[in-house]
Amino acid sequence: MHFYMDSKELTEGVLSVIKALPVRTTMPILEGIYLEATKDGVKLKCSDLMLQKECLLPATIEEEGFAVVPGKLFSEIVRKLPESIAEVTLSGKSLDISCGRAKSSLQCVEATEEFPEMRFAGETFTVRMDHNDCRDMISQTVFATAQDDSKPILTGVLLELGEEITIVATDAYQFARRSMLLKETVPERNVVIPGKSMIEISRMMDETEEDIELVFTKTHVCVNLKHSRLVARLLDGDYIKYKQILPKDHTTRAMIDKCELMESIDRAQLMAREGNNNIVMKFHENKLTITANSFAGKISEEMDVQINGEDIDIAFNPRFCMNILKCIPDEKIYMDFTTSISPCVIRPVKTEGFYYLIVPVRIYSNF
Amino acid sequence: MHFYMDSKELTEGVLSVIKALPVRTTMPILEGIYLEATKDGVKLKCSDLMLQKECLLPATIEEEGFAVVPGKLFSEIVRKLPESIAEVTLSGKSLDISCGRAKSSLQCVEATEEFPEMRFAGETFTVRMDHNDCRDMISQTVFATAQDDSKPILTGVLLELGEEITIVATDAYQFARRSMLLKETVPERNVVIPGKSMIEISRMMDETEEDIELVFTKTHVCVNLKHSRLVARLLDGDYIKYKQILPKDHTTRAMIDKCELMESIDRAQLMAREGNNNIVMKFHENKLTITANSFAGKISEEMDVQINGEDIDIAFNPRFCMNILKCIPDEKIYMDFTTSISPCVIRPVKTEGFYYLIVPVRIYSNF
Repeated sequence: MHFYMDSKELTEGVLSVIKALPVRTTMPILEGIYLEATKDGVKLKCSDLMLQKECLLPATIEEEGFAVVPGKLFSEIVRKLPESIAEVTLSGKSLDISCGRAKSSLQCVEATEEFPEMRFAGETFTVRMDHNDCRDMISQTVFATAQDDSKPILTGVLLELGEEITIVATDAYQFARRSMLLKETVPERNVVIPGKSMIEISRMMDETEEDIELVFTKTHVCVNLKHSRLVARLLDGDYIKYKQILPKDHTTRAMIDKCELMESIDRAQLMAREGNNNIVMKFHENKLTITANSFAGKISEEMDVQINGEDIDIAFNPRFCMNILKCIPDEKIYMDFTTSISPCVIRPVKTEGFYYLIVPVRIYSNF
Repeated sequence: MHFYMDSKELTEGVLSVIKALPVRTTMPILEGIYLEATKDGVKLKCSDLMLQKECLLPATIEEEGFAVVPGKLFSEIVRKLPESIAEVTLSGKSLDISCGRAKSSLQCVEATEEFPEMRFAGETFTVRMDHNDCRDMISQTVFATAQDDSKPILTGVLLELGEEITIVATDAYQFARRSMLLKETVPERNVVIPGKSMIEISRMMDETEEDIELVFTKTHVCVNLKHSRLVARLLDGDYIKYKQILPKDHTTRAMIDKCELMESIDRAQLMAREGNNNIVMKFHENKLTITANSFAGKISEEMDVQINGEDIDIAFNPRFCMNILKCIPDEKIYMDFTTSISPCVIRPVKTEGFYYLIVPVRIYSNF
């Protein structure tokens, strides 16, 4: 292998693929970046077996070939190269990089041919979206995925496809659902994509200004941009039947200014953190009072709201409230309640397609 | 205690004094901020027994008094107050803060009267400096102080006062000395100030545009700005007699471009970090070659330099080199050597008053 390429383009490529480099792995080869010089250019690839990122960079190829180099060290060296043309040569087990005054040799990872290739094959179907919509819908849902593996399917997000795209995520304490009409209707189908892969898909949206295509097979999803490509495994198994747990009705609806509410929760959670990490929200006579208590003291916040229905006292983990409120674009939100131990629905007043649910915590007598 | 004050000014005051709040302490009262309403305004104070920071803020005082509140929680709450007038009231053991919609009560720390007061008394003498010179001289030396307590005096910086001010710091591996003529000569005297306190003094320089005064007693140093004040204990004991370890002569002098050298060391240290954390510098025939080796590979950098005297091979910890080079304002530096196991002197070619020393590491045969 022997090629010349712009050091800045090499840096951008490395920074793009390295997102799929696993933090911890039992397969040492996955700690490497796969590098291949082909007649089309230089291909870089990282994989953690669930997610694979690749890019193809323009280069002057003197000799084709491939190698796997230690990912972290290679990326650090490449990032600090002077802006110039880098000459890259594989000689034996050593990858030599020469760029201006800087010369380095990296020991390649052995057994290069064992670097896993994610197969993306079989019948495909394609979902086309605006890149901004795609990024926004992901960030407005993915926070609600489970962070632990006790129910593996909940570490993913559900995509319900058809006339609309609906993205659902829940960890059983918080629930997020975003829907949007698709530009082109696709056959009805549900898939579950790991949360981590969804975050990488949303990051890729910054690299383009055009509509993007999510291409699915039975087992994988693929996103192609001009110079880079992501392939991710879908999660096996069925997502939970969430529709049966969504509240059918409510007895109290409050209309609240979102920014006021966020500022108040932001302050109240300082005191909540010193105690049992709960804030109590009391909806009485068009006033909302938020309180947080701990051995260290008390915070209370009052604001005008519009209440339809019965007064209610309810308590929440403030972090879950903030996660949801951050996603809502409107100035005003609805909070819909039935009892102080049933889930509360949070929605923007005007914008369609947002539906959030949050499970309250029990209020103990000392409040 | 009862007063009204602007929440933004309260925030600035808290952020200023909290720098002296100890991270860990066996005296719980030191985790608090001392708050006192006097006829002159509201005084805030933090202390870790070695360093005390105070400020005096304008306020409308309804009733004088004092309290100690949990420092971290109070600062977080104050920072998130809406921009408005805050009303602060001490009622029993609770400090009530009301600001716009936000109301909080903080349990005060008991035994408020035990909050330590650092005495700043006795005969004083004063050193007057430009605030920028003061900040620069500190940052150009304080990095060389010892980070562990094995020789406590080396955790401080030595100030040699007289016609000049000379600041010296060393941890026995690196040595830094900066000198500058004083505007007004002071009687000759040496003092040792803890490195941490020096860093706080340098941070205070951002709060002023005027000359500053370092006021010394036999045991303390004090810096007064318009609204804030720092008092720090001096370190007891004599500083090491460093002059006798400074090289008297050199057999090789190299003149080197500082930026080229920094870029090369910055790259070489990536490989050094994978191995024994050394870089080897070979000065031969007006060329400097820097190499770093490890099991992961090799980096080598070459640059033109001007060598007077014998060729020399020498190895350094790259972090120590970078610490020093960052402090030098000139484009060109001198490195002066005698042998590959004796300290190397680093100095700017043009600017006076900078003197750095770095101890090499032994070169083993595998290089």
